[in-house]
Amino acid sequence: MNQLHELGKKAVSAKFELQKMTTEEKNEALKCVAKALLDKKDIILAANAVDIKIGEENGMHVGKLDRLRLNDERIKALAEGVLQVVELPDPVGEVMETSECANGLIIEKKRVPMGVVGIIYESRPNVTSDAFALCFKTGNAVILKGGSDAIHSNKAITDVIKEALLACNVTEDAISLIEATDRSVTQEFMRMKEYVDVLIPRGGAGLIRSVVENSTIPVIETGTGNCHIYVDESADVDMAISIIFNAKTQRIGVCNACESLLIHEKIKDKVLPLIANKLKEKQVEIRGDEKSAEVIECVPATEEDYATEYLDYIISVKVVAGVEEAIAHINKYNTKHSEAIITEDKENAEKFMRDVDAACVYVNASTRFTDGFEFGFGAEIGISTQKLHARGPMGLRELTSYKYTIQGNGQIRG
Amino acid sequence: MNQLHELGKKAVSAKFELQKMTTEEKNEALKCVAKALLDKKDIILAANAVDIKIGEENGMHVGKLDRLRLNDERIKALAEGVLQVVELPDPVGEVMETSECANGLIIEKKRVPMGVVGIIYESRPNVTSDAFALCFKTGNAVILKGGSDAIHSNKAITDVIKEALLACNVTEDAISLIEATDRSVTQEFMRMKEYVDVLIPRGGAGLIRSVVENSTIPVIETGTGNCHIYVDESADVDMAISIIFNAKTQRIGVCNACESLLIHEKIKDKVLPLIANKLKEKQVEIRGDEKSAEVIECVPATEEDYATEYLDYIISVKVVAGVEEAIAHINKYNTKHSEAIITEDKENAEKFMRDVDAACVYVNASTRFTDGFEFGFGAEIGISTQKLHARGPMGLRELTSYKYTIQGNGQIRG
Repeated sequence: MNQLHELGKKAVSAKFELQKMTTEEKNEALKCVAKALLDKKDIILAANAVDIKIGEENGMHVGKLDRLRLNDERIKALAEGVLQVVELPDPVGEVMETSECANGLIIEKKRVPMGVVGIIYESRPNVTSDAFALCFKTGNAVILKGGSDAIHSNKAITDVIKEALLACNVTEDAISLIEATDRSVTQEFMRMKEYVDVLIPRGGAGLIRSVVENSTIPVIETGTGNCHIYVDESADVDMAISIIFNAKTQRIGVCNACESLLIHEKIKDKVLPLIANKLKEKQVEIRGDEKSAEVIECVPATEEDYATEYLDYIISVKVVAGVEEAIAHINKYNTKHSEAIITEDKENAEKFMRDVDAACVYVNASTRFTDGFEFGFGAEIGISTQKLHARGPMGLRELTSYKYTIQGNGQIRG
Repeated sequence: MNQLHELGKKAVSAKFELQKMTTEEKNEALKCVAKALLDKKDIILAANAVDIKIGEENGMHVGKLDRLRLNDERIKALAEGVLQVVELPDPVGEVMETSECANGLIIEKKRVPMGVVGIIYESRPNVTSDAFALCFKTGNAVILKGGSDAIHSNKAITDVIKEALLACNVTEDAISLIEATDRSVTQEFMRMKEYVDVLIPRGGAGLIRSVVENSTIPVIETGTGNCHIYVDESADVDMAISIIFNAKTQRIGVCNACESLLIHEKIKDKVLPLIANKLKEKQVEIRGDEKSAEVIECVPATEEDYATEYLDYIISVKVVAGVEEAIAHINKYNTKHSEAIITEDKENAEKFMRDVDAACVYVNASTRFTDGFEFGFGAEIGISTQKLHARGPMGLRELTSYKYTIQGNGQIRG
């Protein structure tokens, strides 16, 4: 435990150093880091091979092994990820507002780093360098707690970054990795409120739930997406089919994939078979309500189906009486991530955008666009599904806070 | 417990109603509420008399009794508080940003209500109507958990508000009061994450700590202020004395009062006796370090003194070698609320504003200005001392979130 607190103290010291750095200094250091990741790739690959070997011995799932595995190309992608952050504008120091009070006080609201950012993540080692780059560019120190599956890879990447920072005369405590992998350490980390300003979990629903339940540090909840597409009576049918097929099958394991389809009862006879037919191309299993079963072959859907983020070739379907019922169903079952309506009716589109409670609400487009790059924000630290602080894709700006500076000439309160 | 969940469900239903209301409709309802508070003042005063009687019987502290007590004038102030919120601009619906992607998607970032706001507060019944008005104006449903000391007053005020809302055809579930006063209910409330979007504790350090420790709902930490004033070598001495006297003694029980004085060693001999002399006018007890004790009469200060928010006629004093030591001391002991430097040196002022980690950093002005009204934001729901979401005085804007709406014409992700 003492080691953990030592690490917290060092991160706090580092944050005071980092917040003084200019954008140019930060960019130079990031370029050094990107170069070091390429130069030292053999060290990183050797460490990764250890993780892979242990994973294989423990019978790790093929998909998980793939996410864990690094190779030349993926190391190149790590370095490129860091360089992409160099290109992004630095939000720190921006004067967001200025006002002068009647008594002459001048109040400025300025964007400042968050301070120390904690990230708890699962087995993808690319998060180590990605999260570092985003936090560093915004003047934050970062404390990382990766999964035990990737510990050797994460440690190698962290060491390479630390060495590169030192070579640029930047404090190596800008990045720290918690190396202990037992659960009690994670629990202790989540309560290091005196050092850490915000905690961002990245991973599956279980990890996120655990962080929300146990953290005393303010958390930004990310990730889980039980995303719906509602096909309105007036929908362009070809567009609906194309968007549903894309949102469900283009990549199944992601949070912005479509998990549930709602369709207006008046068009179900005509349109539902066409959609089902298209989804057959990818062997998507359909779990539908009774009304769906009247027109397509499907497994009966349960309440639980409507609440499930499958992350698989499965979709739940429900026939609804109209946009109001669609909105009510979505607001009952969704995870506040991304929701879409396919409609040619402007009024229904407006109603859907206003009344659906989600970070991203789409009209006539695939939910798959909820992504920092697609939104033009650049790299993202995650997609927030809470309403406090940040919602939807979180980029550099969402890793900052603000402070007020108030300049006077002796004003006192009467 | 079931009652609590019932209340949560009703608040969620209410939030969907409230977010559809126009600014005019919300203002009309608030005017009805203000009028009802005046019209029904006898009911409110009678209920308050019960709380006061119980408080007196239980030997409640005079200061606390005073904060609990309502009278004609204070009821008038409640109503006026609600009318002030009518006058404030409605942030909901504001389009914060618009962008068009290369693929033709149009992304709008729009300000929306937070949803359901939970407030846990102590014995001041005015919070009941103040918090309701701010939440209602921003389209939020509010669930209130007041202190048991004020339960009769809070219930009367809530009932008057509910009745006024119903008379305007607005859902009475826009406001709910948790009437059970046992601790287990508060604990359960803090974990009602499925209904409540943000929880704001208002009260003493103990209450706030308990909420931070136990809540699974995102919390905005408010309140505690261990505020410092640093008198730099170059300070205008008269200004320093006037600001310290104001910040320490103008009102002692508030979070933006000065609790600790730092002074440059080169001016201590001359200036410290003058400050001590002025503070004697209000019998302020000085707790100083050894160097202070060389020039003024004082009680020896302990480590604990430097970490204490006295909320009393007491101030801790420390002599420092310069602005860097002052900043380091503040960043070690402060609660990230309000900090001030008195200086004529522009460079030191800049350094102090940049490097002190606090919501509000002052140059040559009293820390007492940290307040929504003083900042020109209007009524405030609290003063945030965390960095996530909101920092410093929180007004209407800070009670909102945002959502992205994305409009396309069939875009799918490649």
